[in-house]
Amino acid sequence: MEIIDEVGEKGVIERRFTLTSGEELVPGIQWLPESVTVPRPTILIGHGGTQHKRVPNVLGLARKLVRTGGFGVVALDAPGHGDRMTPEQKKAQSELLARRTGERLSPLSEERLRAMASAATSAVSEWKALLDDFGNDPKWASGPFGYWGVSMGTAFGLPLLATERRITAAVLGLSALHGDGVRQTEQASAIEIPLLFLFQWDDELMNREGGLALWDAFGSKEKTMHINPGPHVGIPLFEREAAVAFFKRHLDEE
Amino acid sequence: MEIIDEVGEKGVIERRFTLTSGEELVPGIQWLPESVTVPRPTILIGHGGTQHKRVPNVLGLARKLVRTGGFGVVALDAPGHGDRMTPEQKKAQSELLARRTGERLSPLSEERLRAMASAATSAVSEWKALLDDFGNDPKWASGPFGYWGVSMGTAFGLPLLATERRITAAVLGLSALHGDGVRQTEQASAIEIPLLFLFQWDDELMNREGGLALWDAFGSKEKTMHINPGPHVGIPLFEREAAVAFFKRHLDEE
Repeated sequence: MEIIDEVGEKGVIERRFTLTSGEELVPGIQWLPESVTVPRPTILIGHGGTQHKRVPNVLGLARKLVRTGGFGVVALDAPGHGDRMTPEQKKAQSELLARRTGERLSPLSEERLRAMASAATSAVSEWKALLDDFGNDPKWASGPFGYWGVSMGTAFGLPLLATERRITAAVLGLSALHGDGVRQTEQASAIEIPLLFLFQWDDELMNREGGLALWDAFGSKEKTMHINPGPHVGIPLFEREAAVAFFKRHLDEE
Repeated sequence: MEIIDEVGEKGVIERRFTLTSGEELVPGIQWLPESVTVPRPTILIGHGGTQHKRVPNVLGLARKLVRTGGFGVVALDAPGHGDRMTPEQKKAQSELLARRTGERLSPLSEERLRAMASAATSAVSEWKALLDDFGNDPKWASGPFGYWGVSMGTAFGLPLLATERRITAAVLGLSALHGDGVRQTEQASAIEIPLLFLFQWDDELMNREGGLALWDAFGSKEKTMHINPGPHVGIPLFEREAAVAFFKRHLDEE
Protein backbone atom coordinates (compact mmCIF):
# COMPACT_ATOMS: atom_id res chain seq x y z
CA MET A 1 0.00 0.00 0.00
CA GLU A 2 1.22 3.42 -0.89
CA ILE A 3 0.03 6.73 0.50
CA ILE A 4 -0.73 9.25 -2.25
CA ASP A 5 -1.97 12.16 -0.23
CA GLU A 6 -3.16 13.05 3.26
CA VAL A 7 -5.31 15.98 4.44
CA GLY A 8 -7.05 16.83 7.71
CA GLU A 9 -10.44 18.52 7.97
CA LYS A 10 -12.64 19.15 11.01
CA GLY A 11 -11.20 16.35 13.07
CA VAL A 12 -10.97 13.81 10.24
CA ILE A 13 -7.78 12.74 8.45
CA GLU A 14 -8.43 11.68 4.85
CA ARG A 15 -5.63 9.61 3.36
CA ARG A 16 -5.65 8.52 -0.28
CA PHE A 17 -3.72 5.36 -1.04
CA THR A 18 -3.15 2.73 -3.69
CA LEU A 19 -3.54 -0.93 -2.82
CA THR A 20 -1.81 -3.60 -4.89
CA SER A 21 -3.91 -6.74 -5.33
CA GLY A 22 -2.32 -9.20 -7.78
CA GLU A 23 -1.85 -7.13 -10.92
CA GLU A 24 -4.51 -4.61 -9.98
CA LEU A 25 -3.81 -1.17 -8.54
CA VAL A 26 -6.83 -0.29 -6.42
CA PRO A 27 -7.42 3.34 -5.40
CA GLY A 28 -8.65 3.71 -1.83
CA ILE A 29 -9.27 6.22 0.93
CA GLN A 30 -8.74 5.84 4.66
CA TRP A 31 -10.46 8.16 7.14
CA LEU A 32 -9.09 8.42 10.69
CA PRO A 33 -9.85 10.46 13.82
CA GLU A 34 -7.26 13.26 14.01
CA SER A 35 -7.07 13.22 17.77
CA VAL A 36 -6.73 9.49 18.40
CA THR A 37 -3.32 7.86 18.45
CA VAL A 38 -4.13 4.37 19.65
CA PRO A 39 -5.30 1.84 17.05
CA ARG A 40 -9.05 1.88 16.63
CA PRO A 41 -11.49 -0.63 15.08
CA THR A 42 -11.81 -0.09 11.34
CA ILE A 43 -14.91 -0.27 9.15
CA LEU A 44 -14.59 -1.22 5.47
CA ILE A 45 -17.21 0.47 3.28
CA GLY A 46 -18.24 -1.22 0.03
CA HIS A 47 -20.00 1.34 -2.18
CA GLY A 48 -23.01 0.65 -4.44
CA GLY A 49 -23.19 0.03 -8.18
CA THR A 50 -22.33 3.07 -10.38
CA GLN A 51 -20.84 4.72 -7.25
CA HIS A 52 -17.23 5.10 -6.10
CA LYS A 53 -15.13 5.37 -2.93
CA ARG A 54 -16.03 9.00 -2.24
CA VAL A 55 -19.68 9.48 -3.28
CA PRO A 56 -21.60 11.67 -0.82
CA ASN A 57 -23.25 8.79 1.07
CA VAL A 58 -19.94 6.97 1.59
CA LEU A 59 -18.18 10.18 2.62
CA GLY A 60 -21.03 11.17 4.97
CA LEU A 61 -21.11 7.74 6.59
CA ALA A 62 -17.31 7.61 6.88
CA ARG A 63 -17.16 11.00 8.63
CA LYS A 64 -20.01 10.01 10.96
CA LEU A 65 -18.20 6.77 11.88
CA VAL A 66 -14.98 8.69 12.55
CA ARG A 67 -16.52 11.62 14.41
CA THR A 68 -19.15 9.95 16.56
CA GLY A 69 -17.72 6.43 16.73
CA GLY A 70 -14.01 7.21 16.76
CA PHE A 71 -13.50 4.46 14.17
CA GLY A 72 -11.09 4.24 11.27
CA VAL A 73 -12.81 3.76 7.89
CA VAL A 74 -11.60 2.52 4.50
CA ALA A 75 -13.29 2.58 1.10
CA LEU A 76 -11.97 1.13 -2.18
CA ASP A 77 -13.08 1.76 -5.75
CA ALA A 78 -14.78 -1.50 -6.75
CA PRO A 79 -13.70 -3.24 -9.98
CA GLY A 80 -14.96 -1.21 -12.94
CA HIS A 81 -15.95 1.74 -10.74
CA GLY A 82 -14.58 5.19 -9.86
CA ASP A 83 -11.02 5.76 -11.02
CA ARG A 84 -10.92 2.19 -12.37
CA MET A 85 -13.46 2.74 -15.14
CA THR A 86 -12.41 2.34 -18.76
CA PRO A 87 -13.77 4.86 -21.27
CA GLU A 88 -16.25 2.16 -22.38
CA GLN A 89 -17.44 1.63 -18.82
CA LYS A 90 -17.84 5.38 -18.32
CA LYS A 91 -19.98 5.56 -21.44
CA ALA A 92 -22.09 2.56 -20.40
CA GLN A 93 -22.61 4.09 -16.95
CA SER A 94 -23.67 7.45 -18.36
CA GLU A 95 -26.24 5.64 -20.45
CA LEU A 96 -27.42 3.67 -17.41
CA LEU A 97 -27.80 6.80 -15.28
CA ALA A 98 -29.60 8.59 -18.13
CA ARG A 99 -32.28 5.90 -18.03
CA ARG A 100 -33.20 6.86 -14.45
CA THR A 101 -36.71 8.17 -13.98
CA GLY A 102 -36.79 10.57 -11.06
CA GLU A 103 -35.42 8.87 -7.97
CA ARG A 104 -36.32 5.37 -9.05
CA LEU A 105 -33.81 3.09 -10.75
CA SER A 106 -34.44 0.84 -13.73
CA PRO A 107 -34.48 -2.91 -12.98
CA LEU A 108 -31.15 -4.76 -12.92
CA SER A 109 -30.69 -6.64 -16.21
CA GLU A 110 -29.42 -10.21 -16.26
CA GLU A 111 -26.31 -8.80 -17.95
CA ARG A 112 -25.64 -6.42 -15.04
CA LEU A 113 -26.25 -9.18 -12.50
CA ARG A 114 -23.73 -11.40 -14.35
CA ALA A 115 -21.19 -8.57 -14.54
CA MET A 116 -21.60 -7.96 -10.81
CA ALA A 117 -21.13 -11.64 -9.98
CA SER A 118 -17.95 -11.70 -12.04
CA ALA A 119 -16.61 -8.53 -10.40
CA ALA A 120 -17.37 -10.00 -6.96
CA THR A 121 -14.41 -12.39 -7.20
CA SER A 122 -11.96 -9.53 -7.77
CA ALA A 123 -13.61 -7.35 -5.12
CA VAL A 124 -13.31 -10.11 -2.52
CA SER A 125 -9.60 -10.62 -3.35
CA GLU A 126 -8.99 -6.90 -3.01
CA TRP A 127 -10.61 -6.62 0.43
CA LYS A 128 -8.55 -9.62 1.55
CA ALA A 129 -5.36 -8.03 0.18
CA LEU A 130 -6.23 -4.88 2.13
CA LEU A 131 -6.67 -6.85 5.36
CA ASP A 132 -3.36 -8.64 4.68
CA ASP A 133 -1.59 -5.29 4.34
CA PHE A 134 -3.23 -4.01 7.52
CA GLY A 135 -2.02 -7.14 9.29
CA ASN A 136 1.53 -6.52 8.10
CA ASP A 137 1.70 -2.92 9.26
CA PRO A 138 -0.26 -1.88 12.35
CA LYS A 139 0.23 1.82 11.59
CA TRP A 140 -2.73 1.40 9.22
CA ALA A 141 -5.21 -0.47 11.37
CA SER A 142 -5.03 -3.29 13.86
CA GLY A 143 -8.65 -4.41 13.94
CA PRO A 144 -11.20 -5.54 14.90
CA PHE A 145 -12.80 -4.98 11.50
CA GLY A 146 -16.35 -4.30 10.45
CA TYR A 147 -17.93 -4.11 6.99
CA TRP A 148 -20.68 -1.78 5.74
CA GLY A 149 -22.07 -2.34 2.25
CA VAL A 150 -25.59 -2.24 0.79
CA SER A 151 -26.84 -3.14 -2.71
CA MET A 152 -23.67 -4.00 -4.71
CA GLY A 153 -21.86 -3.68 -1.36
CA THR A 154 -23.94 -6.65 -0.21
CA ALA A 155 -23.56 -8.54 -3.51
CA PHE A 156 -19.80 -8.39 -2.84
CA GLY A 157 -20.19 -8.60 0.94
CA LEU A 158 -21.86 -12.02 0.86
CA PRO A 159 -18.90 -13.93 -0.70
CA LEU A 160 -16.47 -11.78 1.32
CA LEU A 161 -18.05 -12.37 4.74
CA ALA A 162 -18.75 -16.04 3.99
CA THR A 163 -15.00 -16.68 3.73
CA GLU A 164 -13.29 -13.90 5.70
CA ARG A 165 -13.05 -14.39 9.45
CA ARG A 166 -11.16 -11.16 10.17
CA ILE A 167 -14.39 -9.18 9.77
CA THR A 168 -16.53 -9.66 12.87
CA ALA A 169 -19.61 -7.45 12.40
CA ALA A 170 -21.39 -6.13 9.32
CA VAL A 171 -24.13 -3.84 8.06
CA LEU A 172 -25.68 -5.15 4.82
CA GLY A 173 -28.91 -4.45 2.95
CA LEU A 174 -30.81 -3.33 -0.17
CA SER A 175 -30.47 -6.87 -1.41
CA ALA A 176 -32.79 -9.84 -1.94
CA LEU A 177 -32.63 -13.44 -3.09
CA HIS A 178 -32.87 -13.51 -6.88
CA GLY A 179 -33.00 -16.28 -9.49
CA ASP A 180 -33.01 -19.60 -7.66
CA GLY A 181 -31.26 -17.90 -4.73
CA VAL A 182 -29.17 -21.00 -4.03
CA ARG A 183 -25.76 -19.36 -4.11
CA GLN A 184 -26.84 -16.37 -2.00
CA THR A 185 -28.48 -18.69 0.52
CA GLU A 186 -25.30 -20.77 0.79
CA GLN A 187 -23.19 -17.67 1.36
CA ALA A 188 -25.67 -16.16 3.83
CA SER A 189 -25.89 -19.33 5.88
CA ALA A 190 -22.08 -19.41 6.15
CA ILE A 191 -22.12 -15.92 7.70
CA GLU A 192 -22.49 -16.08 11.49
CA ILE A 193 -21.27 -12.66 12.67
CA PRO A 194 -23.64 -10.05 14.15
CA LEU A 195 -25.53 -8.32 11.33
CA LEU A 196 -27.62 -5.24 10.78
CA PHE A 197 -29.62 -5.59 7.55
CA LEU A 198 -31.18 -2.43 6.04
CA PHE A 199 -34.13 -2.79 3.70
CA GLN A 200 -36.36 -0.34 1.83
CA TRP A 201 -40.00 -1.43 1.70
CA ASP A 202 -40.66 0.22 -1.69
CA ASP A 203 -37.35 -0.85 -3.26
CA GLU A 204 -37.85 -0.87 -7.03
CA LEU A 205 -34.93 -3.30 -7.55
CA MET A 206 -35.42 -5.82 -4.73
CA ASN A 207 -38.64 -7.60 -3.82
CA ARG A 208 -39.89 -7.73 -0.24
CA GLU A 209 -40.18 -11.51 0.08
CA GLY A 210 -36.66 -11.95 -1.33
CA GLY A 211 -35.28 -9.39 1.10
CA LEU A 212 -36.93 -11.02 4.11
CA ALA A 213 -35.76 -14.45 2.87
CA LEU A 214 -32.16 -13.26 2.50
CA TRP A 215 -32.15 -11.86 6.05
CA ASP A 216 -33.75 -15.08 7.28
CA ALA A 217 -31.01 -17.13 5.58
CA PHE A 218 -28.09 -15.62 7.50
CA GLY A 219 -26.47 -18.01 9.98
CA SER A 220 -25.98 -15.22 12.52
CA LYS A 221 -27.46 -15.55 15.97
CA GLU A 222 -27.71 -11.76 16.24
CA LYS A 223 -29.23 -10.29 13.10
CA THR A 224 -31.60 -7.32 13.02
CA MET A 225 -33.53 -6.16 9.96
CA HIS A 226 -34.43 -2.47 9.76
CA ILE A 227 -37.22 -1.79 7.27
CA ASN A 228 -38.07 1.76 6.20
CA PRO A 229 -40.54 3.00 3.59
CA GLY A 230 -39.16 4.40 0.35
CA PRO A 231 -37.19 3.52 -2.79
CA HIS A 232 -33.78 1.83 -3.26
CA VAL A 233 -31.87 5.09 -2.93
CA GLY A 234 -33.48 6.46 0.20
CA ILE A 235 -32.19 4.83 3.39
CA PRO A 236 -32.99 7.42 6.10
CA LEU A 237 -30.00 9.31 7.47
CA PHE A 238 -30.78 8.11 11.01
CA GLU A 239 -29.69 4.62 9.96
CA ARG A 240 -26.13 6.02 10.05
CA GLU A 241 -26.58 6.53 13.79
CA ALA A 242 -27.88 2.97 14.05
CA ALA A 243 -24.76 1.71 12.24
CA VAL A 244 -22.49 3.63 14.62
CA ALA A 245 -24.32 2.17 17.65
CA PHE A 246 -24.16 -1.32 16.11
CA PHE A 247 -20.40 -1.17 15.45
CA LYS A 248 -19.74 0.37 18.88
CA ARG A 249 -21.58 -2.52 20.49
CA HIS A 250 -19.64 -5.17 18.61
CA LEU A 251 -16.21 -3.76 17.84
CA ASP A 252 -15.54 -1.64 20.91
CA GLU A 253 -16.21 -4.40 23.39
CA GLU A 254 -13.80 -6.94 21.96
CA MET B 1 -52.85 12.82 41.14
CA GLU B 2 -51.50 12.07 44.54
CA ILE B 3 -47.92 11.21 45.44
CA ILE B 4 -47.71 8.13 47.68
CA ASP B 5 -43.98 7.80 48.05
CA GLU B 6 -40.71 9.03 46.53
CA VAL B 7 -37.22 7.50 46.66
CA GLY B 8 -33.96 8.22 44.83
CA GLU B 9 -31.49 5.57 43.71
CA LYS B 10 -28.38 5.89 41.53
CA GLY B 11 -29.47 9.07 39.82
CA VAL B 12 -33.11 8.07 39.36
CA ILE B 13 -36.07 9.39 41.38
CA GLU B 14 -38.90 6.86 41.63
CA ARG B 15 -42.22 8.40 42.63
CA ARG B 16 -45.31 6.27 43.27
CA PHE B 17 -48.61 8.02 42.71
CA THR B 18 -52.32 7.40 42.33
CA LEU B 19 -54.16 8.78 39.34
CA THR B 20 -57.90 9.34 39.46
CA SER B 21 -59.66 8.51 36.19
CA GLY B 22 -63.44 8.67 36.51
CA GLU B 23 -64.20 6.31 39.39
CA GLU B 24 -60.96 4.38 38.99
CA LEU B 25 -57.91 4.83 41.17
CA VAL B 26 -54.94 3.92 39.00
CA PRO B 27 -51.57 3.13 40.63
CA GLY B 28 -48.62 4.57 38.73
CA ILE B 29 -44.90 5.25 38.94
CA GLN B 30 -42.94 8.21 37.62
CA TRP B 31 -39.18 8.00 37.12
CA LEU B 32 -37.17 11.22 36.82
CA PRO B 33 -33.51 12.19 36.49
CA GLU B 34 -32.30 13.30 39.95
CA SER B 35 -29.98 15.95 38.62
CA VAL B 36 -32.27 17.68 36.14
CA THR B 37 -34.50 20.52 37.24
CA VAL B 38 -35.88 21.78 33.93
CA PRO B 39 -38.91 19.97 32.47
CA ARG B 40 -37.91 17.09 30.25
CA PRO B 41 -39.81 15.11 27.59
CA THR B 42 -41.73 12.24 29.18
CA ILE B 43 -42.23 8.70 27.89
CA LEU B 44 -45.36 6.75 28.85
CA ILE B 45 -44.73 3.01 29.12
CA GLY B 46 -47.65 0.62 28.57
CA HIS B 47 -46.73 -2.81 29.96
CA GLY B 48 -47.65 -6.16 28.40
CA GLY B 49 -50.43 -8.59 29.30
CA THR B 50 -50.02 -10.36 32.70
CA GLN B 51 -47.38 -7.74 33.59
CA HIS B 52 -47.56 -4.59 35.73
CA LYS B 53 -46.04 -1.12 36.05
CA ARG B 54 -42.80 -2.32 37.62
CA VAL B 55 -41.91 -5.66 35.99
CA PRO B 56 -38.18 -5.99 35.26
CA ASN B 57 -38.40 -5.04 31.57
CA VAL B 58 -40.43 -1.88 32.31
CA LEU B 59 -38.14 -0.91 35.18
CA GLY B 60 -35.01 -1.58 33.11
CA LEU B 61 -36.29 0.42 30.17
CA ALA B 62 -37.45 3.27 32.43
CA ARG B 63 -34.06 3.54 34.11
CA LYS B 64 -32.29 3.43 30.74
CA LEU B 65 -34.52 6.23 29.38
CA VAL B 66 -33.84 8.33 32.50
CA ARG B 67 -30.10 7.66 32.74
CA THR B 68 -29.01 7.77 29.13
CA GLY B 69 -31.81 9.88 27.64
CA GLY B 70 -32.47 12.23 30.54
CA PHE B 71 -36.21 11.65 30.02
CA GLY B 72 -39.02 11.43 32.53
CA VAL B 73 -40.96 8.15 32.39
CA VAL B 74 -44.39 7.10 33.63
CA ALA B 75 -45.99 3.65 33.87
CA LEU B 76 -49.53 2.79 35.01
CA ASP B 77 -51.02 -0.53 36.06
CA ALA B 78 -53.35 -1.42 33.18
CA PRO B 79 -56.98 -2.34 33.95
CA GLY B 80 -57.07 -5.75 35.61
CA HIS B 81 -53.28 -5.82 36.08
CA GLY B 82 -50.79 -5.29 38.92
CA ASP B 83 -52.33 -3.79 42.05
CA ARG B 84 -55.71 -3.60 40.26
CA MET B 85 -56.25 -7.34 40.02
CA THR B 86 -59.21 -8.92 41.77
CA PRO B 87 -58.62 -12.28 43.51
CA GLU B 88 -60.37 -13.94 40.53
CA GLN B 89 -58.05 -12.22 38.09
CA LYS B 90 -55.01 -13.26 40.11
CA LYS B 91 -56.20 -16.86 40.03
CA ALA B 92 -56.89 -16.74 36.27
CA GLN B 93 -53.44 -15.24 35.67
CA SER B 94 -51.67 -17.89 37.75
CA GLU B 95 -53.41 -20.53 35.66
CA LEU B 96 -52.43 -18.74 32.46
CA LEU B 97 -48.77 -18.48 33.48
CA ALA B 98 -48.75 -22.14 34.58
CA ARG B 99 -49.65 -23.13 31.02
CA ARG B 100 -46.39 -21.64 29.71
CA THR B 101 -44.02 -24.12 28.14
CA GLY B 102 -40.45 -22.90 28.59
CA GLU B 103 -40.10 -19.43 27.17
CA ARG B 104 -42.93 -19.75 24.68
CA LEU B 105 -46.44 -18.51 25.45
CA SER B 106 -49.71 -20.26 24.69
CA PRO B 107 -51.79 -18.72 21.89
CA LEU B 108 -54.14 -15.85 22.76
CA SER B 109 -57.69 -17.19 23.05
CA GLU B 110 -60.62 -15.32 21.52
CA GLU B 111 -61.76 -14.71 25.10
CA ARG B 112 -58.47 -13.01 26.02
CA LEU B 113 -58.54 -10.92 22.84
CA ARG B 114 -62.09 -9.78 23.70
CA ALA B 115 -61.12 -8.98 27.29
CA MET B 116 -58.15 -6.95 26.03
CA ALA B 117 -60.32 -5.01 23.56
CA SER B 118 -62.75 -4.18 26.35
CA ALA B 119 -59.93 -3.09 28.72
CA ALA B 120 -58.50 -0.88 25.96
CA THR B 121 -61.28 1.68 26.36
CA SER B 122 -60.48 2.16 30.07
CA ALA B 123 -56.72 2.15 29.45
CA VAL B 124 -57.05 4.90 26.82
CA SER B 125 -59.17 7.04 29.20
CA GLU B 126 -56.60 6.61 31.93
CA TRP B 127 -53.65 7.69 29.77
CA LYS B 128 -55.67 10.73 28.67
CA ALA B 129 -56.52 11.55 32.30
CA LEU B 130 -52.80 11.36 33.09
CA LEU B 131 -51.94 13.76 30.27
CA ASP B 132 -54.72 16.10 31.48
CA ASP B 133 -53.22 16.13 34.98
CA PHE B 134 -49.74 16.74 33.55
CA GLY B 135 -51.18 19.67 31.58
CA ASN B 136 -52.69 21.15 34.72
CA ASP B 137 -49.51 21.00 36.79
CA PRO B 138 -46.16 21.39 35.03
CA LYS B 139 -44.25 20.15 38.11
CA TRP B 140 -45.09 16.67 36.82
CA ALA B 141 -44.16 16.93 33.15
CA SER B 142 -44.57 19.51 30.47
CA GLY B 143 -44.12 17.41 27.34
CA PRO B 144 -43.41 16.62 24.60
CA PHE B 145 -44.68 13.09 25.23
CA GLY B 146 -43.69 9.74 23.79
CA TYR B 147 -45.26 6.30 24.20
CA TRP B 148 -43.55 2.90 24.47
CA GLY B 149 -45.72 -0.21 24.50
CA VAL B 150 -45.44 -3.64 22.87
CA SER B 151 -47.87 -6.58 22.78
CA MET B 152 -50.80 -5.47 25.01
CA GLY B 153 -49.04 -2.09 25.13
CA THR B 154 -49.65 -1.88 21.38
CA ALA B 155 -53.21 -3.28 21.62
CA PHE B 156 -53.92 -0.28 23.90
CA GLY B 157 -51.51 2.02 22.08
CA LEU B 158 -53.36 1.80 18.75
CA PRO B 159 -56.65 3.35 19.99
CA LEU B 160 -54.69 5.76 22.21
CA LEU B 161 -52.38 7.11 19.52
CA ALA B 162 -55.15 7.19 16.91
CA THR B 163 -57.01 9.78 19.00
CA GLU B 164 -54.39 11.46 21.21
CA ARG B 165 -52.41 14.28 19.61
CA ARG B 166 -50.34 15.13 22.68
CA ILE B 167 -48.16 12.05 22.07
CA THR B 168 -45.79 12.80 19.21
CA ALA B 169 -43.52 9.71 18.85
CA ALA B 170 -44.01 6.05 19.75
CA VAL B 171 -42.34 2.67 19.98
CA LEU B 172 -44.81 -0.17 19.35
CA GLY B 173 -44.47 -3.84 18.43
CA LEU B 174 -45.07 -7.55 19.14
CA SER B 175 -48.42 -7.12 17.47
CA ALA B 176 -50.04 -8.21 14.20
CA LEU B 177 -53.32 -7.80 12.34
CA HIS B 178 -55.73 -10.49 13.58
CA GLY B 179 -59.27 -11.51 12.62
CA ASP B 180 -60.38 -9.32 9.73
CA GLY B 181 -57.89 -6.67 10.87
CA VAL B 182 -60.29 -3.88 9.90
CA ARG B 183 -60.34 -2.05 13.24
CA GLN B 184 -56.55 -2.27 13.73
CA THR B 185 -55.98 -1.04 10.17
CA GLU B 186 -58.30 1.93 10.75
CA GLN B 187 -56.49 2.86 13.95
CA ALA B 188 -53.04 2.36 12.42
CA SER B 189 -53.82 4.49 9.38
CA ALA B 190 -54.99 7.32 11.69
CA ILE B 191 -51.57 7.31 13.40
CA GLU B 192 -49.12 9.62 11.63
CA ILE B 193 -46.41 10.26 14.22
CA PRO B 194 -42.86 8.85 13.88
CA LEU B 195 -42.85 5.17 14.87
CA LEU B 196 -40.39 2.48 15.77
CA PHE B 197 -42.05 -0.95 15.47
CA LEU B 198 -40.33 -3.93 17.14
CA PHE B 199 -41.11 -7.43 15.88
CA GLN B 200 -39.88 -10.91 16.78
CA TRP B 201 -39.49 -13.20 13.76
CA ASP B 202 -40.34 -16.37 15.70
CA ASP B 203 -43.17 -14.83 17.72
CA GLU B 204 -45.46 -17.68 18.80
CA LEU B 205 -48.43 -15.31 19.28
CA MET B 206 -48.19 -13.04 16.22
CA ASN B 207 -47.78 -14.14 12.61
CA ARG B 208 -45.15 -12.57 10.37
CA GLU B 209 -47.44 -11.46 7.56
CA GLY B 210 -49.82 -9.84 10.06
CA GLY B 211 -46.93 -8.03 11.75
CA LEU B 212 -45.59 -6.69 8.45
CA ALA B 213 -49.14 -5.72 7.39
CA LEU B 214 -49.75 -3.83 10.65
CA TRP B 215 -46.49 -1.87 10.25
CA ASP B 216 -47.40 -1.22 6.61
CA ALA B 217 -50.82 0.14 7.65
CA PHE B 218 -49.51 2.99 9.81
CA GLY B 219 -50.09 6.43 8.34
CA SER B 220 -46.70 7.66 9.55
CA LYS B 221 -44.21 9.03 7.06
CA GLU B 222 -41.34 7.94 9.32
CA LYS B 223 -41.84 4.37 10.50
CA THR B 224 -39.07 1.84 10.98
CA MET B 225 -39.60 -1.85 11.66
CA HIS B 226 -36.88 -3.70 13.61
CA ILE B 227 -37.09 -7.46 13.20
CA ASN B 228 -35.05 -9.79 15.42
CA PRO B 229 -35.05 -13.58 15.63
CA GLY B 230 -36.63 -15.20 18.68
CA PRO B 231 -39.92 -15.67 20.55
CA HIS B 232 -42.52 -13.15 21.80
CA VAL B 233 -40.70 -12.56 25.07
CA GLY B 234 -37.21 -11.98 23.76
CA ILE B 235 -36.70 -8.49 22.31
CA PRO B 236 -32.90 -7.99 22.50
CA LEU B 237 -31.71 -5.56 25.16
CA PHE B 238 -30.00 -3.41 22.52
CA GLU B 239 -33.44 -2.34 21.30
CA ARG B 240 -33.60 -0.24 24.48
CA GLU B 241 -30.69 1.81 23.11
CA ALA B 242 -32.54 2.11 19.81
CA ALA B 243 -35.61 3.41 21.68
CA VAL B 244 -33.51 6.01 23.51
CA ALA B 245 -31.96 7.18 20.22
CA PHE B 246 -35.41 7.28 18.58
CA PHE B 247 -36.97 9.38 21.35
CA LYS B 248 -33.94 11.67 21.50
CA ARG B 249 -34.27 12.31 17.80
CA HIS B 250 -37.95 13.17 17.98
CA LEU B 251 -38.62 14.61 21.43
CA ASP B 252 -35.40 16.51 22.10
CA GLU B 253 -35.48 18.48 18.87
CA GLU B 254 -38.97 19.91 19.27
